Amino acid sequence: LYFYMKENYYEDLGFAKVDHSRQKRNGYPEVIFGEGKTPEQAAKIFATIKAKDVSVICTRASKGMGQYIINEVPEAVYYESCRLCIYQKEKPKPIGCVAIVTGGTADIPVAEEASIVLETYGSGVKRLYDVGVAGIHRLLSNLDVFENVNCVIAVAGMEGALPSVISGLVSVPVIAVPTATGYGANFGGLAPLLAMLNSCAAGVSVVNIGNGFGAAYQADMINKLAAGSQKTDT
Amino acid sequence: LYFYMKENYYEDLGFAKVDHSRQKRNGYPEVIFGEGKTPEQAAKIFATIKAKDVSVICTRASKGMGQYIINEVPEAVYYESCRLCIYQKEKPKPIGCVAIVTGGTADIPVAEEASIVLETYGSGVKRLYDVGVAGIHRLLSNLDVFENVNCVIAVAGMEGALPSVISGLVSVPVIAVPTATGYGANFGGLAPLLAMLNSCAAGVSVVNIGNGFGAAYQADMINKLAAGSQKTDT
Amino acid sequence: LYFYMKENYYEDLGFAKVDHSRQKRNGYPEVIFGEGKTPEQAAKIFATIKAKDVSVICTRASKGMGQYIINEVPEAVYYESCRLCIYQKEKPKPIGCVAIVTGGTADIPVAEEASIVLETYGSGVKRLYDVGVAGIHRLLSNLDVFENVNCVIAVAGMEGALPSVISGLVSVPVIAVPTATGYGANFGGLAPLLAMLNSCAAGVSVVNIGNGFGAAYQADMINKLAAGSQKTDT
Amino acid sequence: LYFYMKENYYEDLGFAKVDHSRQKRNGYPEVIFGEGKTPEQAAKIFATIKAKDVSVICTRASKGMGQYIINEVPEAVYYESCRLCIYQKEKPKPIGCVAIVTGGTADIPVAEEASIVLETYGSGVKRLYDVGVAGIHRLLSNLDVFENVNCVIAVAGMEGALPSVISGLVSVPVIAVPTATGYGANFGGLAPLLAMLNSCAAGVSVVNIGNGFGAAYQADMINKLAAGSQKTDT
Amino acid sequence: LYFYMKENYYEDLGFAKVDHSRQKRNGYPEVIFGEGKTPEQAAKIFATIKAKDVSVICTRASKGMGQYIINEVPEAVYYESCRLCIYQKEKPKPIGCVAIVTGGTADIPVAEEASIVLETYGSGVKRLYDVGVAGIHRLLSNLDVFENVNCVIAVAGMEGALPSVISGLVSVPVIAVPTATGYGANFGGLAPLLAMLNSCAAGVSVVNIGNGFGAAYQADMINKLAAGSQKTDT
Amino acid sequence: LYFYMKENYYEDLGFAKVDHSRQKRNGYPEVIFGEGKTPEQAAKIFATIKAKDVSVICTRASKGMGQYIINEVPEAVYYESCRLCIYQKEKPKPIGCVAIVTGGTADIPVAEEASIVLETYGSGVKRLYDVGVAGIHRLLSNLDVFENVNCVIAVAGMEGALPSVISGLVSVPVIAVPTATGYGANFGGLAPLLAMLNSCAAGVSVVNIGNGFGAAYQADMINKLAAGSQKTDT
Amino acid sequence: LYFYMKENYYEDLGFAKVDHSRQKRNGYPEVIFGEGKTPEQAAKIFATIKAKDVSVICTRASKGMGQYIINEVPEAVYYESCRLCIYQKEKPKPIGCVAIVTGGTADIPVAEEASIVLETYGSGVKRLYDVGVAGIHRLLSNLDVFENVNCVIAVAGMEGALPSVISGLVSVPVIAVPTATGYGANFGGLAPLLAMLNSCAAGVSVVNIGNGFGAAYQADMINKLAAGSQKTDT
Amino acid sequence: LYFYMKENYYEDLGFAKVDHSRQKRNGYPEVIFGEGKTPEQAAKIFATIKAKDVSVICTRASKGMGQYIINEVPEAVYYESCRLCIYQKEKPKPIGCVAIVTGGTADIPVAEEASIVLETYGSGVKRLYDVGVAGIHRLLSNLDVFENVNCVIAVAGMEGALPSVISGLVSVPVIAVPTATGYGANFGGLAPLLAMLNSCAAGVSVVNIGNGFGAAYQADMINKLAAGSQKTDT
Repeated sequence: LYFYMKENYYEDLGFAKVDHSRQKRNGYPEVIFGEGKTPEQAAKIFATIKAKDVSVICTRASKGMGQYIINEVPEAVYYESCRLCIYQKEKPKPIGCVAIVTGGTADIPVAEEASIVLETYGSGVKRLYDVGVAGIHRLLSNLDVFENVNCVIAVAGMEGALPSVISGLVSVPVIAVPTATGYGANFGGLAPLLAMLNSCAAGVSVVNIGNGFGAAYQADMINKLAAGSQKTDT
Repeated sequence: LYFYMKENYYEDLGFAKVDHSRQKRNGYPEVIFGEGKTPEQAAKIFATIKAKDVSVICTRASKGMGQYIINEVPEAVYYESCRLCIYQKEKPKPIGCVAIVTGGTADIPVAEEASIVLETYGSGVKRLYDVGVAGIHRLLSNLDVFENVNCVIAVAGMEGALPSVISGLVSVPVIAVPTATGYGANFGGLAPLLAMLNSCAAGVSVVNIGNGFGAAYQADMINKLAAGSQKTDT
Repeated sequence: LYFYMKENYYEDLGFAKVDHSRQKRNGYPEVIFGEGKTPEQAAKIFATIKAKDVSVICTRASKGMGQYIINEVPEAVYYESCRLCIYQKEKPKPIGCVAIVTGGTADIPVAEEASIVLETYGSGVKRLYDVGVAGIHRLLSNLDVFENVNCVIAVAGMEGALPSVISGLVSVPVIAVPTATGYGANFGGLAPLLAMLNSCAAGVSVVNIGNGFGAAYQADMINKLAAGSQKTDT
Repeated sequence: LYFYMKENYYEDLGFAKVDHSRQKRNGYPEVIFGEGKTPEQAAKIFATIKAKDVSVICTRASKGMGQYIINEVPEAVYYESCRLCIYQKEKPKPIGCVAIVTGGTADIPVAEEASIVLETYGSGVKRLYDVGVAGIHRLLSNLDVFENVNCVIAVAGMEGALPSVISGLVSVPVIAVPTATGYGANFGGLAPLLAMLNSCAAGVSVVNIGNGFGAAYQADMINKLAAGSQKTDT
Repeated sequence: LYFYMKENYYEDLGFAKVDHSRQKRNGYPEVIFGEGKTPEQAAKIFATIKAKDVSVICTRASKGMGQYIINEVPEAVYYESCRLCIYQKEKPKPIGCVAIVTGGTADIPVAEEASIVLETYGSGVKRLYDVGVAGIHRLLSNLDVFENVNCVIAVAGMEGALPSVISGLVSVPVIAVPTATGYGANFGGLAPLLAMLNSCAAGVSVVNIGNGFGAAYQADMINKLAAGSQKTDT
Repeated sequence: LYFYMKENYYEDLGFAKVDHSRQKRNGYPEVIFGEGKTPEQAAKIFATIKAKDVSVICTRASKGMGQYIINEVPEAVYYESCRLCIYQKEKPKPIGCVAIVTGGTADIPVAEEASIVLETYGSGVKRLYDVGVAGIHRLLSNLDVFENVNCVIAVAGMEGALPSVISGLVSVPVIAVPTATGYGANFGGLAPLLAMLNSCAAGVSVVNIGNGFGAAYQADMINKLAAGSQKTDT
Repeated sequence: LYFYMKENYYEDLGFAKVDHSRQKRNGYPEVIFGEGKTPEQAAKIFATIKAKDVSVICTRASKGMGQYIINEVPEAVYYESCRLCIYQKEKPKPIGCVAIVTGGTADIPVAEEASIVLETYGSGVKRLYDVGVAGIHRLLSNLDVFENVNCVIAVAGMEGALPSVISGLVSVPVIAVPTATGYGANFGGLAPLLAMLNSCAAGVSVVNIGNGFGAAYQADMINKLAAGSQKTDT
Repeated sequence: LYFYMKENYYEDLGFAKVDHSRQKRNGYPEVIFGEGKTPEQAAKIFATIKAKDVSVICTRASKGMGQYIINEVPEAVYYESCRLCIYQKEKPKPIGCVAIVTGGTADIPVAEEASIVLETYGSGVKRLYDVGVAGIHRLLSNLDVFENVNCVIAVAGMEGALPSVISGLVSVPVIAVPTATGYGANFGGLAPLLAMLNSCAAGVSVVNIGNGFGAAYQADMINKLAAGSQKTDT
């Protein structure tokens, strides 16, 4: 542990302790969760991480926060539909592949959060959107998408059946992401969340409602482990 | 309304008012919900209905209640796995057809409650059990089951995806029945209940957790409407 | 299944895979769920379906989405109170009949969603609004509405008692639709949803809170089955 | 307040502080809630209250607790179906009247808890059992029960619609008691509890699930207020 | 029943069936629940009831709805804090008395809804506001408020303890009204709702969260029953 | 941290890592949570802690577990009503004082768990049981109990009002413990838990439902801090 | 009690009964909960308390309410980020010390509510922000913060793990405050609330979601008890 | 798809359709979920799978079911503590490594379910039990366990903090398994489930409460992907 503590350190901004040792420890630099922070706080943390010459991701960034960050770090890019603000040090050459699948069109913002994070981290990505079980031939006629992928991210609202169906068809881990799409008794994503936790097909694990970033982070780990590569220096 | 009240009457047992006009009004004689009644009460109501020369169904009957009823009405039959106690006046010739499908083996008791009720009421029944989405080819290679049926009852626990998948494949109403099968976060059937209410495929309606009887009752109505027949004199 | 896949196909818009084979498979063309889509996405899907010369329905369309669609497809009509946007190929001659009943005035938008969808699909409709159980003579003096209907849609908020009362009076299926009308412990429609799932009168099935479209879809199926007709070419 | 405290006192048994001033303050002697107490504790409190020469009620008494109490106070009576143990000082002449109505037979134990408590307190009681909304003529043909009653207690499980329907028909307060009768999504009485709280008919108030005693206690107050009588010396 | 139906009738506005027989049946004219209705609908119903020369109450009326009604019925008055719109035929002479008590200042809008409804119906009212249990001497030094009242309405948010404390001190029915006041785990009034349903003091019944009107309606019934009066011709 | 780790160690039993440094770090030796462990596991941990010559507490111990432990450690004592099994090194001289108060008799087992733990740890204890708000004079006439106490533990089920009332009367911290006592909508202690979290009187904090041990542990800390003493060598 | 009532009094503003005896009874003057009050009401109560020459705190004050109060009481200060409005009679010399720790930056507003209240009451405060368990070395390398503090307030959203970790490291009480920070299944702070109530480390008690004030109030009591001081005359 | 269907088949037992093509499709033979099946059904499926000369796992097998299976398949082994019944074709040489960590002793049965499944599938396993956050040095002094593992399974009840802490320390995926260990407000594992879904440390995904098998299944996939191996012929 002595070793552990010596290796780990942070930069103290008062309102935040930026964890510069996270890349060494976890393989990824610290990521900023924008919600609940002021634009000033987010931008200051963003710049502090970037100063270490690594890529930076801020999730759940409002449009105003995104603009504020870009003012501070002009190289950053804001993705409005999925509320990401990203500075990418250099474009990595994609390694391995992750499939990102949605049940419907309304699930795309969450899926894009995952896709862009994976691309930033340097994983290859295949998108397959709007293949929900109401017309299951749309999924079944695209099974080749799952060839040579090391992980699947399945994003769905409503009844959240998609991850179960996919997991019954593939031999790689499926990470399920519930969304809040649907009529009243969806209860803000509770319905697909419970469905995904209860998947009858083994091989499914679940992240929080709408947490495309979390799914991408774990999928990137799995993909890199499978690709046998060193993690890229993001 | 004057007419309505004149047509309707009941037999008063004190602890129960047996509604002998229900067959005239709804097309089916009164059905006994066994749970919460004493065996004596259930048996007395059972005998009172039978005295009108119609078939009698008691649902949710414990083994003890079943035996008590058979003591009173020796022609009655008790089905232990699905807790039904039934006196059938005469075996009707099946009319039309309803498909009853389950996701797994553990859902069969609820499905059998539905199947036996439908057979008692005189609907034709096709059973297709254990075709859950973990191995979807089991469903897809049995699509011929759905030919010439007027209604589908889909029984599933866990994530409750089956009714959505089926409804995307057929052109008749699907009645979904959630069951309490699954690990902890199934919450006694809440997970598949919410999933079924949120089905992305139109054409699905839902009955209470484990309510195979209710599904069969409505399916029988639909099947008879479709078959253009008079309701049988059960 | 080989046959099944050959028969089924879709048109890929990238953000959506429009399922043109749904009419063949389910008897109805694909319906657009507007919520969560951008106006551009909804309008593009709308036009894509219309191009196949069928009627098109977009549910949960905001006013802005409705206007956007009408810009693209001028023949479409927007119904503000129930958020429907519809292009109807030709006005079908009504077949059979469905009764649509509400407990109160506040439930009318959901009931109208159902009514207009049924009319678009070519089912006959009888409306009976504001006959909740607080003044039950309003229902009892209108029992003739239920003559010659093949299905009843009962829409109610608050305690959601209406479907149970109706189901005890009629011999056709009752599809219950909960709404979010009521004081605090209505919990966004949870109270009537649970009430409807627990109906003491058999013959009731339930759709999601506020899902007038889903109720209409299934009611149309039942009505057409009963009317013995071929489904109209919507 | 000085006055208030001088008037109020209790007898300290260590594990309980028996509130002998409750009759003076509230008009009723203390009532024992049996659940969670040991039989010894319940019996000791029972005897302590009786020693003041008033009637005594112990609710939620298990069979064992009832026997233990009768050993200590042989004049007490145990009612197994509704788990009451009662010592009644003298049989009061009934005053006024309360109607007690149930939706079904399974609700009778809770209704009997209410009925017996009211009879012990000296209110007149009219019972009307099994008149749920599945066969509403059973209620409508018994409307004369509600003549000359000062309060109605409506006990129902499943969808809990009964109090709403009754409240729309009478001009006296309706106290609603939910019960846990029903299939899975009854959730131990939650479904009828929410339904009753959301009654569309004004004039309904609600007590806890299965709390027949609480309903009777308030109904007795209302009935006595209406009958213009002094409370009986129970 | 024939008699019952002959006595009961309504006026059909299409979107509403105004129940003019409610006063005869329940002792009060129909009351309008404003939420979910359009201003036009509310105003039309308001005028229709008023045309029968009775007092009219519209609850949960937004400011815009209030103005719309006053345009149609200039004699109506709008109470903004409690969202009531009322036309009172003539000012009744108060009969009996109801005490209305709040735990805090934030509960006053709900209490005023109750107070004004009671005054409109002709019950005497005593207000006692901000006497919550954090400073219980404020309640204990005002016990004389409860003298000669026939009913107490206790309005409270946060932990909802007030009705229990009051019910332990008085000998008349207590109607409890939960409100949504409080920090996060109040869950929109769920916390005090459950607390009130679980009152350890008998004599408490509960209405929906924020439903001051419902409490007043039932309290008025109890008060009038106790005062031995005929209901006033509101 | 290097220092921290050197100071901290544990004894590894394979199925448990007994944390012998907890007394140094937290001031109390490790406590065993009996539920979910086998009697063998609990007894082995019990003996391992005792071998360090400190007092040992096992909470939530079934009767069988208690007997098993006493077999292994004959000096241990089992308290059946509150499921504690305790070995006390030596009887400490009480320091300071904590008041333990219950709403009712049924809350005593939880209160006794707290009382005995406090006595084991060497805090003075004053018990005041059955002073719930239904007869608030029982509390008000015992206010002297709160003199010279440094902390109050308030245990209550049903509506959980007791901690709020007490906190309005005293100037020391109140730790609230909800219990599962009550009718159906208590929901296993959820009702008083929410009530206590929403206390209108500041100065209340809450522990888990039925967690008398946790309340005692924190109360002991507060009491010892206030008494200015070193923690006793339990 | 006679004594108690003589000592206690309040000032009646009609809409509020200001409890001037609270300082004597509880050691702190009354605190205003701003939410649900009008600015006028809050300002009037504020001025009424200040007139007694004590410090005044209004929590949950909107910006508009803060401005309104400052208009009335120009010496008051408004803290926008944590919605406090405070008039401090005189700056007290800090006594003892409380540590206030957050998991993340988004938890700071709640922590600042606690910090400022503690400073107003005269407790010493040490802040340690953004030391959540994702980078636990940030906490472990700051353990010296906990030296010589008498109490810890731990504020955290998301999984709410922070209080458990801290409580395992210190020997003083930990008061946990959940916040609503996080993705969908945070459910407005429910997730960390439940986590904190279930802490595996003894010594944690919990206040309502976001209730920084309540945590500070109890922490101040504990700190002052430990510091052996008289409460300051705030 | 034609290819897909030709490749997939099942063996129909009537009550079950055993999916012999699952190994080809998913890399693992079908696994039996014992709960809800009769012992006869489970044993018949067990034998049917074994007949294909592969390893067989039955989860959630009661003791009686285990004995029944062993009667049919004497080579099977029953593990009582974790309710597994397993027939292992041959002992595989372990590939790669997965760490399985628990917060406490009570979580071991779920962890053992995971461990034994992983060993059956041929993954290497390192166990680290009882290292919950109450004594975090137990975890910190065992960080070497995480060296050279490809995945971590973290099992915890109570507040469920363990997976977050671990995920902040390692660079491989963490699969979190909640258990039902804890006091009342654990709500059967809901508390740690929500905590795990809300982990502040990225890299955590979650399976159902108590679903050790599901965690092991996904962990085995990840481990084998990372180890670059072909899946073993189980």
